[in-house]
Amino acid sequence: MSEPIESLSLSAIGRKFREGSLNAVALTQHCIGRHEPSLNAYREWTPEPALRQAEQADEAFANAQDGGALQGIPISVKDLYGVDDTQTFAGSPAAMPPPWQSEGEIIKGLRASHAVFSGKTHTVEFAFGGLGVNSHWGTPRNPWDADRHRVPGGSSSGAGVSLCEGTALVALGSDTAGSVRIPASMTGNVGLKTSYGRWPVSGIFPLSPTLDTAGILTKSVADAVTAFSAIDPHQRSYGPRLAREVARCSPGDFVMGTGESALWDDCEPGICETVEDALKTLGQAGIKTVSAPLPEAVPAIELLGVGSVVAAEIDEMLSSTAPQWRDTLDPIVSSRIRDGGSISASEYLHRHRRLRELSRSAAQRFTECQVMISPTVAITPPVIDDVQTLETYRPKNMGALRNTCPANYLGLCAITLPIGLDASRMPVGLQLIAPQGHEERLLAVATCIENILGSGRDRLGIPPLLKRN
Amino acid sequence: MSEPIESLSLSAIGRKFREGSLNAVALTQHCIGRHEPSLNAYREWTPEPALRQAEQADEAFANAQDGGALQGIPISVKDLYGVDDTQTFAGSPAAMPPPWQSEGEIIKGLRASHAVFSGKTHTVEFAFGGLGVNSHWGTPRNPWDADRHRVPGGSSSGAGVSLCEGTALVALGSDTAGSVRIPASMTGNVGLKTSYGRWPVSGIFPLSPTLDTAGILTKSVADAVTAFSAIDPHQRSYGPRLAREVARCSPGDFVMGTGESALWDDCEPGICETVEDALKTLGQAGIKTVSAPLPEAVPAIELLGVGSVVAAEIDEMLSSTAPQWRDTLDPIVSSRIRDGGSISASEYLHRHRRLRELSRSAAQRFTECQVMISPTVAITPPVIDDVQTLETYRPKNMGALRNTCPANYLGLCAITLPIGLDASRMPVGLQLIAPQGHEERLLAVATCIENILGSGRDRLGIPPLLKRN
Repeated sequence: MSEPIESLSLSAIGRKFREGSLNAVALTQHCIGRHEPSLNAYREWTPEPALRQAEQADEAFANAQDGGALQGIPISVKDLYGVDDTQTFAGSPAAMPPPWQSEGEIIKGLRASHAVFSGKTHTVEFAFGGLGVNSHWGTPRNPWDADRHRVPGGSSSGAGVSLCEGTALVALGSDTAGSVRIPASMTGNVGLKTSYGRWPVSGIFPLSPTLDTAGILTKSVADAVTAFSAIDPHQRSYGPRLAREVARCSPGDFVMGTGESALWDDCEPGICETVEDALKTLGQAGIKTVSAPLPEAVPAIELLGVGSVVAAEIDEMLSSTAPQWRDTLDPIVSSRIRDGGSISASEYLHRHRRLRELSRSAAQRFTECQVMISPTVAITPPVIDDVQTLETYRPKNMGALRNTCPANYLGLCAITLPIGLDASRMPVGLQLIAPQGHEERLLAVATCIENILGSGRDRLGIPPLLKRN
Repeated sequence: MSEPIESLSLSAIGRKFREGSLNAVALTQHCIGRHEPSLNAYREWTPEPALRQAEQADEAFANAQDGGALQGIPISVKDLYGVDDTQTFAGSPAAMPPPWQSEGEIIKGLRASHAVFSGKTHTVEFAFGGLGVNSHWGTPRNPWDADRHRVPGGSSSGAGVSLCEGTALVALGSDTAGSVRIPASMTGNVGLKTSYGRWPVSGIFPLSPTLDTAGILTKSVADAVTAFSAIDPHQRSYGPRLAREVARCSPGDFVMGTGESALWDDCEPGICETVEDALKTLGQAGIKTVSAPLPEAVPAIELLGVGSVVAAEIDEMLSSTAPQWRDTLDPIVSSRIRDGGSISASEYLHRHRRLRELSRSAAQRFTECQVMISPTVAITPPVIDDVQTLETYRPKNMGALRNTCPANYLGLCAITLPIGLDASRMPVGLQLIAPQGHEERLLAVATCIENILGSGRDRLGIPPLLKRN
């Protein structure tokens, strides 16, 4: 092949599949060969079934059955999703009860499109944490630090790592307060958190029925556009709206708001600096930035600090559907569920009311700008030894989730794209936030930004731990 | 007039309006003349605005503007609904804050159809009680006992009384655990509790966002059919489905299930006997009855006993939107909100889960029968002096709600029709229950039954307190 597979976009791969210069089996074999067990991305690594699925994808191509942009593409799946012939542990030490072993709509759709499933990636236990730590299965290693074991971000902790090592070209995650965007940002990938209700969450173990959303991680915005179009029910129903919107978007077409100062304060060294450098470059390219407020972010972050409605919901979910799983909970997860979940019904309902009120109010903030921006994560991915106790874990976890939770709590959608390295040489993400249901706008603006700044690979290079390849 | 207005059906009145032998002003004047202040049906009695609305209805007729079956018809409105130029107290001692003073979709629709609003009828404070007692405003008197002040049923406590005295021909109520059917049954009227979500509840002070439904009380099933067709958005959208279904229904067309024995046990004297007599007559007329179980009713009644999700929801609603109203709560209402509302978030969410599970299960029970039947209320309307303390109130309140709450908690719809008098010469209702969204079936079966048994007026006669007219 003229170009290394790593540098091909999904759409370039799709063209090669269809012109016959690459097939799904060869791609899948290549991806399987990239597996780095020491990074511990996968809870269940399934190369043989993946190869069989790739053969089926190639057969389908041979029979002129075209399932779309993800046919033959290796996809890793967060271990909250049920996938046939694998088990769902949801980060716990035991396989979950039967309802959580069945495939939901997203997986069924991808299977019908002849996608290839590389395996089930690690998650924080019941997805309840933003750093990616898991004491039952070990914490996947962030490949951006060759010397020390830094966290990969969570809760979709194996998702970003699977993209870095190259075993998957798309990673499925879920995002309740940042669980797609944080691991994407911390591993130098793109992560899209869809609007609440836009993608079905059937067949995904619920952390919070009120806030859970499905999402994707990819290596570039271009790949996110391709994967989003293939998965999103509205794109599938109403045709290529997204392609039109992306093609139409140029730097002068939109204004970015710098949102809330609370999302810029006290970021760890090099994070704001990197974002500001990027904004300078974008400004020179003609993208306007205004100071547009999102004051609802402040009470949203306060709700995060007290457990929002999430701790109570996972608490009841476990008691009602998997009581034995409470006995083996990781001590930090257990303590956070207990603290945040021990609230009164009145307090729970009041928090629900606050979320609705804040969302209504936030929806009115996008008058002067089309998207709001901020650093995606306020902290450098911590070294795992530094987050072993509840006392050291808690402030870092809040730091990880602080900038991402507002999009969830305020009923918005958001994307992160990699823009550089912080003072510890760890990846920095730029977060774009848009109103409910405006994923197309988000992806169009992100595409425009990627066209100016270059992709993560162009801008950040290769993670040090993977450079020996 | 050849026939007294009291004995005319809504459709007969509609014909007279349209042929010119009766007008809305004359009808409204007649109804106003029937007001019995001693019965205390109304919190706010509005004869002058009603006459103006009647004039407008007549003008509309004169201009060939036909707003449908409720144009020119006097309708009483439970004082939970916002109605322009009146105040909403929701059974409390003070007018509620502004959001609860505005008209919602049902009232706006009726106003646009030139209905006539006779006034705001009394309700239990925040609709939280099944007997109809209100210590702030006094309890409307049940006209079926001339000697003693018996309760009228609640929470729509003035609704049934307004129909008995004749100041309204349709009464709007709301039903969270029986608040339309109980007062209808206790006053010898028909009461329809619609399926959750079928009718908009905008502009109605919420007792429970999870369970609240709007509903109507009428003097006959025939009038319920007329009023339902005029109010129901689906009937209005899809044309006269109901008329077809009602016309088509004959005794051999359906089977009634006697449902759960828990709804028949321990009824007060003469209640089951009256229902069984009616069933015998219906059987002779060709209606089949089978013993079809509804075991989900038992845990539903247990949920009632602990406050379901309702106490916690009204507790939070008051704290968040009307905190001062907590200070003046009736002691019995206050104590019940405190006891039932002081639950954990986990317990609240667990009850929610139970309601969903029980509803899914109950929906499968209508295989051998089209409707389930039971006595509507298990108790004789108590004398008001016998329910003055929490200790005496509580068992009677549970007795009032026991047979009606299953339809709410199991996601069903239900109707009550008057079929006779119990051992205390108080009205007895027959309850019919159907699956979610099957109001048309319910009304068709009820019509068939009314055709066999006769209307409440035919069967029960005139309430003793009103016989002097």
